[in-house]
Amino acid sequence: MKKLIKEKNNILTDMLEGLALTNDNIEIISETVVVKKNKKNSGVALVSGGGSGHEPAHAGYVANGMLDAAVCGEVFTSPTPDKILDAIKAVDTGDGVLLIVKNYAGDVMNFEMAQEMAQMEDIKVERVIVNDDIAVSDVEKRRGVAGTVFIHKYAGYLADQGLSLKDIKNKIEAFIPKIKSIGMALTSPMVPTTGKYSFDIDDNEMEIGIGIHGEKGLHREAIQSVDVIIERLLDELLKEVKDQSLIVMVNGMGGTPLSELSIVAKYLNQQFQEHDIAAKQWFVGDYMTSLDMQGFSITVVPYSEEIEKGLLAPTTSRYF
Amino acid sequence: MKKLIKEKNNILTDMLEGLALTNDNIEIISETVVVKKNKKNSGVALVSGGGSGHEPAHAGYVANGMLDAAVCGEVFTSPTPDKILDAIKAVDTGDGVLLIVKNYAGDVMNFEMAQEMAQMEDIKVERVIVNDDIAVSDVEKRRGVAGTVFIHKYAGYLADQGLSLKDIKNKIEAFIPKIKSIGMALTSPMVPTTGKYSFDIDDNEMEIGIGIHGEKGLHREAIQSVDVIIERLLDELLKEVKDQSLIVMVNGMGGTPLSELSIVAKYLNQQFQEHDIAAKQWFVGDYMTSLDMQGFSITVVPYSEEIEKGLLAPTTSRYF
Repeated sequence: MKKLIKEKNNILTDMLEGLALTNDNIEIISETVVVKKNKKNSGVALVSGGGSGHEPAHAGYVANGMLDAAVCGEVFTSPTPDKILDAIKAVDTGDGVLLIVKNYAGDVMNFEMAQEMAQMEDIKVERVIVNDDIAVSDVEKRRGVAGTVFIHKYAGYLADQGLSLKDIKNKIEAFIPKIKSIGMALTSPMVPTTGKYSFDIDDNEMEIGIGIHGEKGLHREAIQSVDVIIERLLDELLKEVKDQSLIVMVNGMGGTPLSELSIVAKYLNQQFQEHDIAAKQWFVGDYMTSLDMQGFSITVVPYSEEIEKGLLAPTTSRYF
Repeated sequence: MKKLIKEKNNILTDMLEGLALTNDNIEIISETVVVKKNKKNSGVALVSGGGSGHEPAHAGYVANGMLDAAVCGEVFTSPTPDKILDAIKAVDTGDGVLLIVKNYAGDVMNFEMAQEMAQMEDIKVERVIVNDDIAVSDVEKRRGVAGTVFIHKYAGYLADQGLSLKDIKNKIEAFIPKIKSIGMALTSPMVPTTGKYSFDIDDNEMEIGIGIHGEKGLHREAIQSVDVIIERLLDELLKEVKDQSLIVMVNGMGGTPLSELSIVAKYLNQQFQEHDIAAKQWFVGDYMTSLDMQGFSITVVPYSEEIEKGLLAPTTSRYF
């Protein structure tokens, strides 16, 4: 297996140790919970997390201006409720904790259980569920993907503004349905804990509408030129997006170099222009990956000064 | 070919267009030269460049606090002297221009020619040559690799401090011999302009001492656990590095996810400790890539407050 690892059972803890070692502002508690070294004294605290393999999500976003804690499960595996509870207790200032959860059955269940456990200890906890992946037609079943990172950033901004837990939750719940993402893959991720690829894909194939754990997409077809790939993705996105002014993320899936993401941005912008759409802010890079998968996703949100301000506000995260 | 491209003859210009489109502070002149939108009015200007395929190097480092211009050749191909001259003329404030060149025959020749052409037009131009790759035993032939990015940042800091061209050149020439790098590859990069891999490598092999264009390394062997890989690299590095206090870069080669680079950092730090070496600052990420190659390099420089200050000084680059 072509992976830079030592012992497959220690991948998560080795990775977190390396991350903490090389980022001055974070530390690890309870083995797999990443928190800021300088805990906030007041204000709403933000906790996210989920399975690992999506780095820098979520641990890389534990920083001033973004998350207060990230609870890290094993690769592609939800963290357990006790760890989530540890995170909640570690960061709560008394002003309450918002849990930012991607819409996967295991994550939703475990974060809900932790929320209930915390509430029994009289900690105010609310929960939002991100489901930005439009490749799934049933809205209830839509997965949380790269758009989650916009939530981390915007919620971090709102918390820094001193908003209450209720107000942040309301604003985030109004924002979530406006975030639309769709992804594609050229290759399957190699899962280091099993030594196996997530799925099989031929040398001349690509998958449109892929999830970030190798979940099946909308369809598979022969590899196309990047402009045709973008056309496929935009066909789906523009069924749901009617705004003429957008904030855009081109997210790399882990194995795709910046050069190709930049080429994606060029042709995406060209097609936006053909649809009279103005892309007013761009975020291009690896934000929510799927191990070493080659591919990318597009996330769009309607442009607003308020959202832009939140996304551009300072953060100490190296990865946003 | 599993690449996000449209037309292989347009890869460079498509990529630069996408990069400029999504970064507010840069623009493209002369087709393949990236410059800051807000040109400096005074002070020494910094120009670097080389073949493409190493993104974010070098165009991503055109930013306040780093480069004033990057001259971008085709993938793995030196830019031509006329383009380098265009860059020099575009950014010169009258206080002179420093060319930061990686030690490859084509780059050295073309930057030298451009320097002479500029001098004939009475522009003050000096040149430094970076050769940090210790995998090549003959110092004269050592390649410039990831350590070049430290030069971009430190020279940018010195220029911002208002130092003269002569003083910056002297400081950088004193710094270069202290920068030592060595890299390894698990896979070969797929070169999109040819549709071919740079070299052949078996599924169970790795290459120690690889260059950033797939140049041969020290040796090839069966893939090892990451701690053994690091041991191999440190064996070479510690022949040349005698300092007990270092600034360290763990550089991803393009196809290696942050999770694995973090694991590298953990075991690298462990081995540093066994050698009584303190890593005082870490830079972990994709700084100088080789297309989508899986692998990493380690760059070390002796710790000094001055260098640390330069490397941590603000920059508007999203990639440092």
